[in-house]
Amino acid sequence: MTKPLALSLGEPAGIGPDITIAAWLRRDAAQLPPFYLRGDRDCIVRRARALGVELPVAEVAIEDASTAFASALPVVATGLAATAEPGRPDDTSAAAAIGAIRSAVDDVRSGRAAAIVTNPIAKSVLYKAGFAHPGHTEFLAELARDGGATPQPVMMLWCPSLAVVPVTIHVSLRDAIAQLTTEMIVSTARIVVRDLQSRLGIAAPRLAIAGLNPHAGEDGSLGTEDRSIVAPAVEILRREGIDARGPLPADTMFHAAARTRYDCAICMYHDQALIPIKTIAFDEGVNVTLGLPFVRTSPDHGTAFDIAGTGRADPSSLIAAMKLAARMADASRG
Amino acid sequence: MTKPLALSLGEPAGIGPDITIAAWLRRDAAQLPPFYLRGDRDCIVRRARALGVELPVAEVAIEDASTAFASALPVVATGLAATAEPGRPDDTSAAAAIGAIRSAVDDVRSGRAAAIVTNPIAKSVLYKAGFAHPGHTEFLAELARDGGATPQPVMMLWCPSLAVVPVTIHVSLRDAIAQLTTEMIVSTARIVVRDLQSRLGIAAPRLAIAGLNPHAGEDGSLGTEDRSIVAPAVEILRREGIDARGPLPADTMFHAAARTRYDCAICMYHDQALIPIKTIAFDEGVNVTLGLPFVRTSPDHGTAFDIAGTGRADPSSLIAAMKLAARMADASRG
Repeated sequence: MTKPLALSLGEPAGIGPDITIAAWLRRDAAQLPPFYLRGDRDCIVRRARALGVELPVAEVAIEDASTAFASALPVVATGLAATAEPGRPDDTSAAAAIGAIRSAVDDVRSGRAAAIVTNPIAKSVLYKAGFAHPGHTEFLAELARDGGATPQPVMMLWCPSLAVVPVTIHVSLRDAIAQLTTEMIVSTARIVVRDLQSRLGIAAPRLAIAGLNPHAGEDGSLGTEDRSIVAPAVEILRREGIDARGPLPADTMFHAAARTRYDCAICMYHDQALIPIKTIAFDEGVNVTLGLPFVRTSPDHGTAFDIAGTGRADPSSLIAAMKLAARMADASRG
Repeated sequence: MTKPLALSLGEPAGIGPDITIAAWLRRDAAQLPPFYLRGDRDCIVRRARALGVELPVAEVAIEDASTAFASALPVVATGLAATAEPGRPDDTSAAAAIGAIRSAVDDVRSGRAAAIVTNPIAKSVLYKAGFAHPGHTEFLAELARDGGATPQPVMMLWCPSLAVVPVTIHVSLRDAIAQLTTEMIVSTARIVVRDLQSRLGIAAPRLAIAGLNPHAGEDGSLGTEDRSIVAPAVEILRREGIDARGPLPADTMFHAAARTRYDCAICMYHDQALIPIKTIAFDEGVNVTLGLPFVRTSPDHGTAFDIAGTGRADPSSLIAAMKLAARMADASRG
């Protein structure tokens, strides 16, 4: 029997329940791998009713999830009720959302789930409940340490024709420039290479490393960081036998022909990575966390409180996230 | 008789002659408006020979160019020989390249040409010959002043589904942040609105104004410039009756559905503007200079010395630049 994917509940007042239901309903057409929701059965039943959808929901043990999947949406209970109404997050949401992530990690670490797919959370809701991590990914890294050192999680955005990794992420553009170091680029790229090999089956990953400045600094006349920070990182990676090229002018890295020349673009800041992938794959991009001891993907969008419970949420990104998670889990098993 | 476009020679050692020839050969299939090359007949004849192309070339007066266009590539001589070999720029190139630009500006200012389309130049070659302007566009602005104040030229990159304008351009990313002001955004946007109205026939242009930081600063937690610099600019523009929205998160501005909601995206730095347009329209983007007293477009690529004279240069961007120039000249005549 195929091991199922563990899908965490996410913020119950957001569109997580909507896209979970929509994805399960499309399971055959989308050729989805079996998954179960780590969460609260009643929350899903209420949301299905709000959406006017006939939905069989089966509360099951993990071991029975793959079998149940064909005829019902399997829910493995966390024991934490998620009572928030669609679009109206409240204090009860936090414990249920956090508990679902913890349980999903336990499931995959204990070998009962193939990978984790996470529904979107609302950081502001979690912060009010005392959540002490900068975000979802950092929390997963903390859960993954398991008594050892905390792994460095690396965010990759993926669609069938492009994978991008921002070296700096949720900081101002000014701080991104100030924080960027050769060491950050190198350590990020090494994790990317290792995971592309072990989890995506790419034997010799090709990295395209973007310059920070326009035209990659144009020989220093448009900024010095490409020479002083980025180029040395490329040099170190190449000496390690990694197929890395750069610093490349970012504006010419992402057209269709250019994208065939590498497996992942390493970008220096958030928008340099996210502009191209959201331009070409807005609805079907997947957020992948590399560097963890398990496979984790998530849809590349937020909680969308404004459309929760309305039936307007698009499950495309969640569906893509599930299919990629299953593919990565398969490749990891070898 | 339709007024012709004046096409400047550009760097003779680059691909300018190649794409000029290729565009003329495709004049019927591409439905090109009549144009003439401002330059040197012998340079074109030699390049045609190098390319192995049968090319009728007619040295004509401007007044005869549109008539000649059907049966020969019309050249209006500058009197400056361009003797550089393909791929080997030399000192003689500079005077011929600069002279062609000067003549083309004279032609359009005296009402004999409809608009200017410029072939790529090599700034490094011109600098050695004492060229004192930062680039092509600034030189055109200087020629346009005509005894008065120098107009503020604004670079727009255009393709059929997207127009973008970077507020800061050829500076390091660090300097772009340091230089960005509310006034620059406002003055740039006003010129964009005026030219979209007068030269592209858009009665009430809709501007999408990008934030500088990821997520447009996320309420100040990812940088303060979106609140302190960009938002006030949007406010000023809106008070003037301009349909401006922003600061918008840049990563979600450029997918196909988002692009239908505005006529031009105003971006804060080079790569924020150029990454999306080169991602979706790498070969057919057009560089348009707004803010001048005449229409000027150019292909959105450089001299490509490495493929000059080989027949591998793609005239798509030049063809798109000519068609857009003719459309803008028509709209300007009203």
